[in-house]
Amino acid sequence: MIIEILCTGTELLTGKINTDDAYLCDKLMGISLTVNRIITVGDSKDQLKAAFNESLKRSDIVFTIGGLGPTFDDLTREVVAGALRRKLVFNREVMHYIAARFARRGLDMPENNDRQANIIEGAKVLSNKHGTAPGMIIEIGEDSKKKFVIMLPGPPGELKPMVEANVMPFLKNKYERNIVKTLVLRVCGLTESAVFEKIRDVVEVEREMEGNILSFALLASSSLINVKITGKGDDELLIDSMVHKARQEVYDCLGDNIFGEGRDTLEGVVGRLFGKKKLTLSVAESCTGGLISNMITNVSGSSIYFRQGVVAYSNGAKISMLNVSGDTIKKYGAVSEHTAKEMAAGVRGISGSDIGLSTTGIAGPSGGGGKKPVGLVYIALAKDDGVFCKKYRFTGSRLVIKEGVAVTALDLVRRRI
Amino acid sequence: MIIEILCTGTELLTGKINTDDAYLCDKLMGISLTVNRIITVGDSKDQLKAAFNESLKRSDIVFTIGGLGPTFDDLTREVVAGALRRKLVFNREVMHYIAARFARRGLDMPENNDRQANIIEGAKVLSNKHGTAPGMIIEIGEDSKKKFVIMLPGPPGELKPMVEANVMPFLKNKYERNIVKTLVLRVCGLTESAVFEKIRDVVEVEREMEGNILSFALLASSSLINVKITGKGDDELLIDSMVHKARQEVYDCLGDNIFGEGRDTLEGVVGRLFGKKKLTLSVAESCTGGLISNMITNVSGSSIYFRQGVVAYSNGAKISMLNVSGDTIKKYGAVSEHTAKEMAAGVRGISGSDIGLSTTGIAGPSGGGGKKPVGLVYIALAKDDGVFCKKYRFTGSRLVIKEGVAVTALDLVRRRI
Repeated sequence: MIIEILCTGTELLTGKINTDDAYLCDKLMGISLTVNRIITVGDSKDQLKAAFNESLKRSDIVFTIGGLGPTFDDLTREVVAGALRRKLVFNREVMHYIAARFARRGLDMPENNDRQANIIEGAKVLSNKHGTAPGMIIEIGEDSKKKFVIMLPGPPGELKPMVEANVMPFLKNKYERNIVKTLVLRVCGLTESAVFEKIRDVVEVEREMEGNILSFALLASSSLINVKITGKGDDELLIDSMVHKARQEVYDCLGDNIFGEGRDTLEGVVGRLFGKKKLTLSVAESCTGGLISNMITNVSGSSIYFRQGVVAYSNGAKISMLNVSGDTIKKYGAVSEHTAKEMAAGVRGISGSDIGLSTTGIAGPSGGGGKKPVGLVYIALAKDDGVFCKKYRFTGSRLVIKEGVAVTALDLVRRRI
Repeated sequence: MIIEILCTGTELLTGKINTDDAYLCDKLMGISLTVNRIITVGDSKDQLKAAFNESLKRSDIVFTIGGLGPTFDDLTREVVAGALRRKLVFNREVMHYIAARFARRGLDMPENNDRQANIIEGAKVLSNKHGTAPGMIIEIGEDSKKKFVIMLPGPPGELKPMVEANVMPFLKNKYERNIVKTLVLRVCGLTESAVFEKIRDVVEVEREMEGNILSFALLASSSLINVKITGKGDDELLIDSMVHKARQEVYDCLGDNIFGEGRDTLEGVVGRLFGKKKLTLSVAESCTGGLISNMITNVSGSSIYFRQGVVAYSNGAKISMLNVSGDTIKKYGAVSEHTAKEMAAGVRGISGSDIGLSTTGIAGPSGGGGKKPVGLVYIALAKDDGVFCKKYRFTGSRLVIKEGVAVTALDLVRRRI
């Protein structure tokens, strides 16, 4: 079976990084469907038309991504309809849905949103819960030569839920034969190459049993590493046991650097820990500037264990809001073990929470120098049995350093409560 | 001129995000070269060959990315040589370079690295300072029909320096003639389609003067819209004046919904305003959970105007940290105009800053109901002349709502100080 993805959007040819295609490939891999080619063209009618016709000729399934919006440079609907020689039919139901979306937000619907209610004749409509452009699945041809065109919106926040809710069930129902099991282990506190060194002996063994195959992949993203174990074949029990055995071997190598599995996030895992132990948390941030609080509150239900956050950027705020002693700051500086410890103890005290977490450091690019270079950071954690503090050196841009500190701080909480 | 990028690598069809193509597009844009198509195929000889032949037929320049490594699945050298009917010639100099690289790292050179010293006949060799695979530039055909194949390694750490050091100088020398000027206007407070409605009459006029052409593009990302104006041609003065006129017309339509230009961020613009007016800011966040503080502190130098942030998730924190009255919360609820106002005034008071900003609302997915549904948010701003508050309805996931609220709050500050 040949599958191609056709992405459209001039922004993708002028420097914007595409993530939709990788996401879709990954989802399709999960049901043993492999993409053969990805093509990206700009918002040009001729180029889109040429690329679509070529793809359709070669493929059994063509995904189009993008170009479903309301504006003049959203051309996919018209191009696909033209190439398939089908009409665009105004769909009243879709129109009502779009209008209701605007109404819910108390906005008037701009007239050009009408266009998004034009549906290709015979298409199955995929409703868009996070935007106005509906997706479509179009069946072409007869039985043995049947093909599908699946049209998806470009914004990842719209595409992903539509793929999850509509496209995957449709494809699973049609194509799922081979069994594929994947397991993702989530790792923190190690670099990608350190992870690889530790698990090299596990991943470099070829694993095949009666035609069932196991494979490994390492993916790094924003201070965290994923170890992905994939088992494929036709014997579900055997695949399960192979994956389980590999999982255990990876755990033996990486120990508590593995903080979770699957869709676990570090902030989610930390949240569950607080829930289970019935503890509460407060955070005093200097160099992370609110990022840790923001990550914690990205977790739904975090209001149960997260008492409060203080972003104490100035020395004055550290003193007045967190009861840090002015003498400490004078003697050791705002970026010091002593200040970090007083911040953690301070936020714990004023909030009455079980755990107080603090960060202070130099996120850069300016502000560093001499004995306190950019990237120098102290992270402290206050509990009933005392205050612990650790010194770190991070590298990278301001945002990379902020993120590295936030992840390291949350990991410290995970390991110490 | 037609330019295509052909990426090879099975990992790119199985979930890995490609950044090489976006990087190369961006670099080429800088010298007015626009990419027409990006194609991605796996490490399959047949597919690579078919895609390369098609690309070469259509294009004046074909970039290949990836497949230059030493292993069995690195096929680009062989495929391109075959397609161009040229020999692979063993290059002694390249071999020495690769061997020296291994020696420097104290490693024995694996035998299969020999392959990387095979160069396509007539190719210009691009040395790889960060890896073993050299790149190549191959010239094909005669004068008027001259084409180029430019072969680059896949790892970003090898590709980027090679593009900078070798490819850009080569291309600049050959092609830098056309003048391209782009101007990006950054818009907030309107949906993408509302922006389009307002500027429709501006963007739908065809603008061409003596062969110099103006074009428009609308790009939405995370609650903000970019209006991009591009002028192309050979008369720099004329292009400048066309872009400037279009800029003015867009300003006339969108007014102060335009918060900045180019690489301006909303938080950066707000920061500059505070700097200019010598004002200070503090933030009290409930539903945004630290996101606003995080955005503000992403700006280098924000410590000058940003005094402090308080993430007051619990009612207790609102009362103890922000001096919100317990009676107010009891009578009107935590998500109410009264509470928002007291939070803004409270954080202004305790921090002694000129401006106090607050958010309170229901980010969801749980916690909503009845008269206070998910997405209901109050944003308040306290200044010397009083406290202003506005009620909003947002839609989307928890993270989308948090982001929408943060952007709207920063925009409110921008408009009101």
